[in-house]
Amino acid sequence: MSSKSKLFDDAVRSLTSLPGIGKRSATRLVLHFLSRPKEEAVEFAEAIETLVKNIKYCQKCHSISDEEVCSICLSKRRDQGFICIVESVRDVMAIEETGQFQGVYHVLGGIISPIEGVGPENLNIDTLKERLSTGRIKEVVMAISPTIEGETTIYYLSQIIAPLGVSISTISRGVSFGGELEYTDEVTLGRSILARLPYNTNKE
Amino acid sequence: MSSKSKLFDDAVRSLTSLPGIGKRSATRLVLHFLSRPKEEAVEFAEAIETLVKNIKYCQKCHSISDEEVCSICLSKRRDQGFICIVESVRDVMAIEETGQFQGVYHVLGGIISPIEGVGPENLNIDTLKERLSTGRIKEVVMAISPTIEGETTIYYLSQIIAPLGVSISTISRGVSFGGELEYTDEVTLGRSILARLPYNTNKE
Repeated sequence: MSSKSKLFDDAVRSLTSLPGIGKRSATRLVLHFLSRPKEEAVEFAEAIETLVKNIKYCQKCHSISDEEVCSICLSKRRDQGFICIVESVRDVMAIEETGQFQGVYHVLGGIISPIEGVGPENLNIDTLKERLSTGRIKEVVMAISPTIEGETTIYYLSQIIAPLGVSISTISRGVSFGGELEYTDEVTLGRSILARLPYNTNKE
Repeated sequence: MSSKSKLFDDAVRSLTSLPGIGKRSATRLVLHFLSRPKEEAVEFAEAIETLVKNIKYCQKCHSISDEEVCSICLSKRRDQGFICIVESVRDVMAIEETGQFQGVYHVLGGIISPIEGVGPENLNIDTLKERLSTGRIKEVVMAISPTIEGETTIYYLSQIIAPLGVSISTISRGVSFGGELEYTDEVTLGRSILARLPYNTNKE
């Protein structure tokens, strides 16, 4: 929809550059801003600016943080000897949401992808090596997507980590809970048979 | 998802206050801002601020405008004697999109709704009266949603406009083009029979 207002169209264009926001949603959002008191939109804009200007990345794990070191890396209730290696901050949040992991994280900031020009030197691997060479880390679990790039990254990291005497695991792959075998792709299904688990007959 | 960062959570909260944006989309948007150069997010925030601080409302029709009077009200190609009365700026855009209306607009800024505490005094009705009393307006068409509040508003306005000798119409209501009779609500279907139109056997 053309609004005949350059200011309006600029704001719509700016919003449509965001992921998942089309022209219709953008128009609706801009009209929403205009329908509310001016201060509300200014506050909103300032929250975004404050975020990008002030957010820090934890010096230890590279996850987002309000301080130099994040609350997970500082927590005494977390196992500081157990590191979960992930691609991005989003993955940290997703795993935290499960409540199943009590260790700490290391955010790589991407995965090795020759096509996109991302090599090991572009990832937070040096600081990972440093953390692992202190001798205080007993285990790492790699929670990295099982794609070709992901597998490459896991292989590359395993070559670095294994000589340090740290135990390495990856998250399990297989059929999703509640997933139908019929709709599971054949690679996943095939691997889930190869990586079958002993069935516990004495379930709690 | 909790991020353990107050700055992050503030930005997410700020985004979820927007229509059509849930917590998941908001998190995705904030991570998007963080994954892009800082300047991009700042530019985005500034586009929103610039918009709300600088947008004007046309002194004649109350639609949004970059100048004191909007381009439609200034256009010599538009019929300045034919006013389409609408609830909001969004309706102006929707009607402009059709390309079927060659007159000008008058944005009420809402509709009469006792439940939401909106009375005629809260709407742009005084300026409408002024425009109509110049004698230069031949017709108004009310493009207002056929809801109870809409019908109330149309009735209220008709009582004001009729004595001024201006011809009044409303947009037609009926079954949508491409709509199935089976799925049309009974009020619409009933009225569409009462308001039946002569069929043109010499279609162009």
